[in-house]
Amino acid sequence: MKNITFASTNQNKFLEVQSILSTRSITVDFSQRHLVEIQSDSLKEIAGEKAKTAFAKVGRPVIVEDDGLFIDSLAGFPGPYSSFVFKTIGNDGILKLLAGSAKRSAYFSSVIAFYNGIILSISDGRVDGRISDRITECDWGYDPIFVPNGTDLTFAELKKSKNEYSHRKRALEKFAQWYLKL
Amino acid sequence: MKNITFASTNQNKFLEVQSILSTRSITVDFSQRHLVEIQSDSLKEIAGEKAKTAFAKVGRPVIVEDDGLFIDSLAGFPGPYSSFVFKTIGNDGILKLLAGSAKRSAYFSSVIAFYNGIILSISDGRVDGRISDRITECDWGYDPIFVPNGTDLTFAELKKSKNEYSHRKRALEKFAQWYLKL
Repeated sequence: MKNITFASTNQNKFLEVQSILSTRSITVDFSQRHLVEIQSDSLKEIAGEKAKTAFAKVGRPVIVEDDGLFIDSLAGFPGPYSSFVFKTIGNDGILKLLAGSAKRSAYFSSVIAFYNGIILSISDGRVDGRISDRITECDWGYDPIFVPNGTDLTFAELKKSKNEYSHRKRALEKFAQWYLKL
Repeated sequence: MKNITFASTNQNKFLEVQSILSTRSITVDFSQRHLVEIQSDSLKEIAGEKAKTAFAKVGRPVIVEDDGLFIDSLAGFPGPYSSFVFKTIGNDGILKLLAGSAKRSAYFSSVIAFYNGIILSISDGRVDGRISDRITECDWGYDPIFVPNGTDLTFAELKKSKNEYSHRKRALEKFAQWYLKL
């Protein structure tokens, strides 16, 4: 078994990371803390800088995660600022922006950044799909309006089976593959 | 005459800063450079951190500026991420988000942050107004959709007389008042 520390404010994210990496022979410690993020159009750059910030605070090899929803016809909006956009205009706002639009393709992207003081490694995962015409049910984030390819259900409607499509899972599996060889 | 260095990527902003501060007996040097910004809901925090970054690079007392458009009914959206939002959904997107809405109040905010290695000073200025129903004419940024209080014209239509309402001018005048006593 190898070990890694996951730094985040979000305990639910930690539990998901732990659950996925444990199936890949990696145990995960949690360093719960707020990490300043930089502004950038690139999730990879944001996550990479966050990993360096986390390492400086935690003092041992760490991973951090950053993710976002990218809508093709809106030039990648809300992208790296998905949290802020959700807090302000929400899913209602996204549906207004796409009202009457046939081009609704979008993807979720997750980036895992590892840093140990020397090596910075970036692993990403994505799930392609489209934005639904309506908000399917109350759930967190953009899950009630995102329909992954291959289904007619939103992430919120898919509930547990959503994990089969998880962008975060894909990024973590890529990271695990790399980390087990390090 | 006192002197200060303004750090920014944007030469037009420098010319505006120089023009305003010169009437307050302050000469301005330009340090043209890209400065990493942090993510935050607070312009003051973003500008403060940017001033520290700028001081570390420039090595002498500096000011930096950050600004944004805050729409009340959208919980302050696009706020600190006004540039990204403009690049992605643009003024068309803002009008779609407010379609049919009677509550259109908004304000532009500008923050000037000064740092000299010891003292961090924040000066802000704002101009209140509302979002128009249509995009008045081609111009830069949100100027074609923002109508300051006291007029029926957008910033774009007001052209040069827009400066009477400038949030940046108000922030700079506040800064000048403070700086001349330092």
